[in-house]
Amino acid sequence: MNNDVRIAMLGSKFMGRAHSNAWMSVNKFFDLPCGAVMHSVCGRDEMATSAFGERWGWASALTDWERAVADPDVDLVDVCTPNDVHAGPAIAALEAGKHVACEKPLAGTLDDARAMRDAAELAKADGLRTFVWFNYRRCPAIAYAHRLIRGGGLGRIFHVRAQYLQDWGGPETPLVWRFDAGQAGSGAHGDLNAHLIDLTRFLTGEEITQVSGAVEETFVTERKLPGGGTGKSTVDDCVLFLARFAGGAVGSFEATRLATGNKNRNTIEINGERGAIRFDFERMNELLWWDDTLPSAQRGWSRVMCTNAGDHPYVEAYWPPGHGLGYEHGFVSQAADILASVGGAEPVVPIPDFADAWETQRVLAAAIVSAREGRAVPLDEIG
Amino acid sequence: MNNDVRIAMLGSKFMGRAHSNAWMSVNKFFDLPCGAVMHSVCGRDEMATSAFGERWGWASALTDWERAVADPDVDLVDVCTPNDVHAGPAIAALEAGKHVACEKPLAGTLDDARAMRDAAELAKADGLRTFVWFNYRRCPAIAYAHRLIRGGGLGRIFHVRAQYLQDWGGPETPLVWRFDAGQAGSGAHGDLNAHLIDLTRFLTGEEITQVSGAVEETFVTERKLPGGGTGKSTVDDCVLFLARFAGGAVGSFEATRLATGNKNRNTIEINGERGAIRFDFERMNELLWWDDTLPSAQRGWSRVMCTNAGDHPYVEAYWPPGHGLGYEHGFVSQAADILASVGGAEPVVPIPDFADAWETQRVLAAAIVSAREGRAVPLDEIG
Amino acid sequence: MNNDVRIAMLGSKFMGRAHSNAWMSVNKFFDLPCGAVMHSVCGRDEMATSAFGERWGWASALTDWERAVADPDVDLVDVCTPNDVHAGPAIAALEAGKHVACEKPLAGTLDDARAMRDAAELAKADGLRTFVWFNYRRCPAIAYAHRLIRGGGLGRIFHVRAQYLQDWGGPETPLVWRFDAGQAGSGAHGDLNAHLIDLTRFLTGEEITQVSGAVEETFVTERKLPGGGTGKSTVDDCVLFLARFAGGAVGSFEATRLATGNKNRNTIEINGERGAIRFDFERMNELLWWDDTLPSAQRGWSRVMCTNAGDHPYVEAYWPPGHGLGYEHGFVSQAADILASVGGAEPVVPIPDFADAWETQRVLAAAIVSAREGRAVPLDEIG
Amino acid sequence: MNNDVRIAMLGSKFMGRAHSNAWMSVNKFFDLPCGAVMHSVCGRDEMATSAFGERWGWASALTDWERAVADPDVDLVDVCTPNDVHAGPAIAALEAGKHVACEKPLAGTLDDARAMRDAAELAKADGLRTFVWFNYRRCPAIAYAHRLIRGGGLGRIFHVRAQYLQDWGGPETPLVWRFDAGQAGSGAHGDLNAHLIDLTRFLTGEEITQVSGAVEETFVTERKLPGGGTGKSTVDDCVLFLARFAGGAVGSFEATRLATGNKNRNTIEINGERGAIRFDFERMNELLWWDDTLPSAQRGWSRVMCTNAGDHPYVEAYWPPGHGLGYEHGFVSQAADILASVGGAEPVVPIPDFADAWETQRVLAAAIVSAREGRAVPLDEIG
Repeated sequence: MNNDVRIAMLGSKFMGRAHSNAWMSVNKFFDLPCGAVMHSVCGRDEMATSAFGERWGWASALTDWERAVADPDVDLVDVCTPNDVHAGPAIAALEAGKHVACEKPLAGTLDDARAMRDAAELAKADGLRTFVWFNYRRCPAIAYAHRLIRGGGLGRIFHVRAQYLQDWGGPETPLVWRFDAGQAGSGAHGDLNAHLIDLTRFLTGEEITQVSGAVEETFVTERKLPGGGTGKSTVDDCVLFLARFAGGAVGSFEATRLATGNKNRNTIEINGERGAIRFDFERMNELLWWDDTLPSAQRGWSRVMCTNAGDHPYVEAYWPPGHGLGYEHGFVSQAADILASVGGAEPVVPIPDFADAWETQRVLAAAIVSAREGRAVPLDEIG
Repeated sequence: MNNDVRIAMLGSKFMGRAHSNAWMSVNKFFDLPCGAVMHSVCGRDEMATSAFGERWGWASALTDWERAVADPDVDLVDVCTPNDVHAGPAIAALEAGKHVACEKPLAGTLDDARAMRDAAELAKADGLRTFVWFNYRRCPAIAYAHRLIRGGGLGRIFHVRAQYLQDWGGPETPLVWRFDAGQAGSGAHGDLNAHLIDLTRFLTGEEITQVSGAVEETFVTERKLPGGGTGKSTVDDCVLFLARFAGGAVGSFEATRLATGNKNRNTIEINGERGAIRFDFERMNELLWWDDTLPSAQRGWSRVMCTNAGDHPYVEAYWPPGHGLGYEHGFVSQAADILASVGGAEPVVPIPDFADAWETQRVLAAAIVSAREGRAVPLDEIG
Repeated sequence: MNNDVRIAMLGSKFMGRAHSNAWMSVNKFFDLPCGAVMHSVCGRDEMATSAFGERWGWASALTDWERAVADPDVDLVDVCTPNDVHAGPAIAALEAGKHVACEKPLAGTLDDARAMRDAAELAKADGLRTFVWFNYRRCPAIAYAHRLIRGGGLGRIFHVRAQYLQDWGGPETPLVWRFDAGQAGSGAHGDLNAHLIDLTRFLTGEEITQVSGAVEETFVTERKLPGGGTGKSTVDDCVLFLARFAGGAVGSFEATRLATGNKNRNTIEINGERGAIRFDFERMNELLWWDDTLPSAQRGWSRVMCTNAGDHPYVEAYWPPGHGLGYEHGFVSQAADILASVGGAEPVVPIPDFADAWETQRVLAAAIVSAREGRAVPLDEIG
Repeated sequence: MNNDVRIAMLGSKFMGRAHSNAWMSVNKFFDLPCGAVMHSVCGRDEMATSAFGERWGWASALTDWERAVADPDVDLVDVCTPNDVHAGPAIAALEAGKHVACEKPLAGTLDDARAMRDAAELAKADGLRTFVWFNYRRCPAIAYAHRLIRGGGLGRIFHVRAQYLQDWGGPETPLVWRFDAGQAGSGAHGDLNAHLIDLTRFLTGEEITQVSGAVEETFVTERKLPGGGTGKSTVDDCVLFLARFAGGAVGSFEATRLATGNKNRNTIEINGERGAIRFDFERMNELLWWDDTLPSAQRGWSRVMCTNAGDHPYVEAYWPPGHGLGYEHGFVSQAADILASVGGAEPVVPIPDFADAWETQRVLAAAIVSAREGRAVPLDEIG
C-alpha cells in the first residue's frame, strides 16, 4: 500500500499485546485508506523485547525510546508505557514530526498532561494528529449509544451513573508495582475513573463542571512482598465522587479494585427525558435501551444485541449477527479509526485527541482535590 | 384469641390499604401469639374513611385522631399519616399507653424525630413498644441477606452501593402534594433515601459516620397545576451522597424520581472480603450472592430464589418454592413480627424502633447539611 | 351486597389455602358486581377442616361434599379436591343448579373430563357457568401478552416453546401420594403440561392439531417410604412432546419435576412474523417482548415490568408501578373474573370453561398415546 | 520454527475468513509445539481468491483443489467448502498423506460422511489426523462445563435441552443459495442441529440412542429471487426432535432460522442429580452453574464469568479476568488444539475426529427419518 503508516510502539506488556494484535489485524478486517506497518517495538529488556517483537511480527526491536521516536522511517508513535513515561516520548515524537497514539490516561500528572496538550496544539499546524486509546468508546454498544444520544434519543439528561468495579485487589494480592504511587501514579482512580470520565463525556456530549464529596480510600495499607515480609501500598484502592454536568445532569462515579464479585464491570446508566441507556462491559455486546416515547404499556429495558452489520458501528468489519465481539476488538477498531484519520477519512466515532483527554485529566485532578479538602470543587479551579 | 391486639389505624391512602391488607391477612398465614383486631380507622374525610373502613373490615371509622388514640379499647396505634402528622399522634398514643407502629420515615423533621425517640424511651419503662414500617427489611431476600452477613458471609465490608430509582416524576407529572415541601417535608430524599439508609444499616450492622458531597437537585422547578397554569415545586427531585461506615466501608446513596426506565428499583450491592450480595426490588424474590470462599473457577453471582420454606425467612408462611411473593407481603410479615413482639416472642429479623429510626433520620439530616454547605459532615454534628 | 355469591369450597390443602385467600381478598381489591361470601368449606378430616375454616373465615365446615354441594344456600361450588374427585362433585353441583369453579386439570381421565364437559353444556341452558382455575392466565404479564398477540403484535406465529420445570422430585424425595398413579392420575404431565397447553392455546388463539414423539419417563422408579423401606413410583417424572398448531406453528412442550435448578420455571416463548414474547413465572412481573417492526438497530428483548395501572391487566386493583405481585394474585384476579362473570360483566381476559378445558385435556391424552405407541397422533383421534 | 505445519485452506467465504484469522493469530496467543504456515488458499474465483489470499497473508492462491491438496509442501488441508465438497477433498488429502481439518457438519449426506470416516480410519495407520471444526466446544464456558461434568459435577443426568435459534430467515429474506437443497444439503438442520448434537454428546459424554417425533417444517416455501419473481425454497426452516441418551437422559433439540428475536442463541441446559448447567452463546463468556450439593438456602444459578486464566480453559492465552472473548476465539483456540495434536501434545479439550463427527451425522440422519416416517427411530437403524 503506498499509504503505509509505519508504527513504532513503546511498551510490550498487557497493552503492548493488545496493540500488536490490533495493528496485525486491522487491515484484514477493515477497508482503509492506509495500511499499518509494524516497524519497531521498544521495551526495557532487550531479550524480552526482541522475543516479543518476533512473536508479534514487529520488524525490529529496540530498548531506547529516544531512538525509536526519532527514526525518520516512522510515521506514528504508539505509546503504551507506564503513565509517568507518556509525556516524554509523546512530546518528543510530536517534535520529530510523528503522529502520536497514547494509552490512557493522558498522563500521570496534570503538569505532564498540560505539556502534552500544548505540544499537540503546536504540532497540529504541521498536520500531526494525536489520539488517546480510550478503547471502550469503540465497543459497538457504546458507539451505538453515542449515536442514539446524539440523535436525541435521551432528550435532556438528568442522571449519569458510572461505576468501574474490579476485585483483584483483595488483601491477599501482593505488593506489585501497581500499588506503588511512584510507579503507578494512582490506583483505581487513574486506571478506571479515567475510562468512566471519558465515556460519560463522550456519551453525554457534556463537560463536568463540578466534583464533590470525593472519597479516596486505601483499604489494604499493608501488603505482602513477593520475597517475604510486607510493605506499604501507596495508592488508592478506590475513589468515588459526585459530579454536575454542564447541561444540568448529576452524576456519580466509582472506581475500585475491591468490589468482590466484579471482574471488569465497567457500567454506565444515563437517564434522560426521552429515554435511558445502560451498559455493562461484562456483557459488552449488549446495550440496554429504554425508549420513553413508546406507548407506556410497551416500554421496557430493551436488550439490544449490538451485532448487526449496518445497524451497529464497526460490526460490518467482523462477523454475522449474534456472533459477539470481545475485549480486543475495541483496539482493532480504534486502530482502524486512527488509520482512517491519518489517511484523511472520518473515524466511525470521534477519537479523543490530547486536548480532549486533557479535559478528562482535569476531572481526575478535581476529584483528588475534593477528596483531600473535603469540599465541592468547581472545574474552573483546575487549569 | 385472648391475646387480641386491638388496632387503631390513622390514615387511609396508599399505606392505609397496605396496612389494612396486612392486618386482615396476618393471622391467616402466620401462627402467632396474638391476633390482630381491626378496631378503628381514622381519616380526614368522614364519608371516604367510612367507606374505606367498611371495605377493609375495620370495626369503626373516625375523623379525629385524638379520640382514636385515646380510646381505652385500643392496644396499638398504627400511624400512616403524612410525615408532619407522625410525631403528634405517636407521642399521644405512647402517653395513652399504647404500642405504636409508625410509617417511615420516622418524621418530617429532626426535631419531631427527636421528640418521638424521647417519648419512646420513656414509654419503654411501661412495657410499650415502638415499631417503624421499614417494610423492605422483611423481603425474604433481604432478611436472608441479613442472616448471611450476620453469619460472617461477607467478612470485612469494603463497599456499599444503594440506589432507589423511580421515574414517575418527569416534567409531565403535575404539581401534586408530593411536590410541596409544606406537606411532604422533602421529595425523593425522605421517601426513598430513608429506605436505603435503613437497609444498609440493617444489612451491614454498621452506623454511618460521615456524609459527603451531597447533591440535591430539583430538575423540574415549574409544574402544571391540575386546574391550569403552573406552580413551583419546592422539594428535591433527587438527592445523592457518599458515606463512610463505622467499620471502614465506603458507600454511595442515590434517591430519585426522574431515573427514566426505573419503576421501583430499590437496589443494593455490598462487597466484602469473603463475599458480596446484590438485591433489586424489581426482582424482589431473588438475592444475588457471591461466595468468594468457593474455588475460584466456580465463583459467580448466584441467583438465589429466596422462596424455600425453612431456608428463607418468612417463606414457610406462604407458598411452595418458586411461587414468588409480592410487594404487600413485606407488610404482612412485618405485621406478624409486630404481633410476635407485642406477644413477647422474637421477630424473625429485628424491627427498627424509634431509637433505631432516629439514627436513620440523622443521616438524612446530615446529607442535607452536606448538600447545602458543600462539605463533608461527620455524623457527630447531628444530634 | 344484594348480589352476594355464596361459595362452598371442597378441599383444604395447598389449593384450599390459595382459594380461601382469593375469596377473602377479592372484594377488597376489586370493584365488582358481586360479593364473595365464604359460606362453607368441606374436607375429609373433621377437626382439620374445622380449624381450617375458622382460620380462613369460612362460615361453616363439613366433611360430606354431597351435602355441601346440595345446600340451597350455596351459589357456587369451588372444587379443589384431587383430580379423581373433580367429576363427581362438579357434575352434582351443576345438577343442583350451582355455578362451578374447578381446579385444573379438568379431570384425571378423559372419560371424566368428557362427562364434565357434557354436564356443563346442559347446565348452560339454566344460566350456569363453569370455570377452570388455570391461574397463570391472570398473571398481568400473560394477560398483557394475550392482548398484544390478539392485537396482531406477533403476526403469523412460527414457534411455540413451552417448558414447566421443577426440581422437587429428585431421588431423595420420598414416596408421597403424588407418586401414586391411583391418587394422582399422572405425575408432571397432568400437573404441569396442563398449564402449558392451556397457556399456549390461550396466547396463540390456536388449537393443537398433532402431537408427536412424546417421551414419558420415570427416572426414579423406587422411592423411600416414610415408614422405612421403599416402594414403586407409578407416575411419570417428566413428559416431553412436540406439536403442530392449527395456524401452522410448531411447538415443543416439557413438564418435569427433576430439572435441577428450576423451582417453578413455567416458561413460554412464542416467535411470530412481527414480534416475539418470552415469559418465565420465576420472574412473573416481567414480559420479554420483541417488536420486529421497530428499526432493526433498535430491536431488542424488552423487559416490560407489567406493573402499570391502566396499561397492564389487573394491576389497577393492586399497587403502584414496580411494586410487584406474587403467585397468589393470579387466584385473587381469577376470583374477580369469576364474580364478574357470574354478575353478568366481562372478565378481564377469558376464563376457560369446561368445554375449553376439555380441549386441553385432549392434548394431554394425545401425548400419552404418542409416548406409548411411538408415533405422531392427530388430535382428531382423541374425542 | 522447525515444526512448521504448512496449511492449504479450501474456501474463502465466511469460514475462510474465520480460519484465516485463526491461523494468523494462533502462534501469537499460544505457546505451541508447531507453527502455522499459511501456505495456500483455494477458491473458485481466481481474482477474488487472489485478493483474499493477499489480504489475509496466504503465500499463494489457487482455484484447483486437486492441485492444492496434492502439493507435497502441504502438511494439513483445511476444508471450508460447501458441505457437498467436503468428502472429495478430504479423502483426497488423506490419500495424499495430509492431516485434514474439516468444517462441520462432516458432510452433506450420510454416504459422504461414511466414506470420510472410513478414509480417516485407514489414514490413521500412517499417523494422519482428522479434525472437525465444531468451534463451540472451545468456548471457555463450554470447555469448562465439560470439565465440571467429567469431574462428576452433575452426577446422573436427567435432562438435556438444546436449542439453536436464529431469525434471519423470515419471509423477506430472498432465495439465497442456503435455501437450495442442491447446494446446501439441508437448512437449519445440518447447519445448527449439527452443533447441538456435537455439543450435547461432548458435554454429557453419552451417545444418543433414539430420536423421536421429529418435526421438519418449511414456513416460507416461496421466496423472492434477487432478479425479480419468486422461487421455491427446498430446505427446512426448522427441525425439532426429542431424544434419549445412553445413560437414561431425555433431550429436546430445536434448530430454526425463524425464531424472531434470536440472533445466534445456541443454548443448552443440562440437569443432573448433583447440579445443572446452562449456556447461551449470545452471552458466550458466561456459564450458569447450579451446585445442588451446596446448602439448599444458598443454591442458585451462578453466573460464572469464564474469563479467569488458570481456572477456565484457553483463557490464559488471551486477556485478564472480565475482558471477554468473542466468536472468533473458538477458531483460534481450535487452531491451537489442532497444532498441539499434530505436534504430539494433548488438546485442551478433545477435538472431534471424523469417527466422532460420524456419530453426530447419524443423529442428523435419524431425525430426518423420524420426521418423514412419523415414528421413533432407534439409532441402531442408522449405519
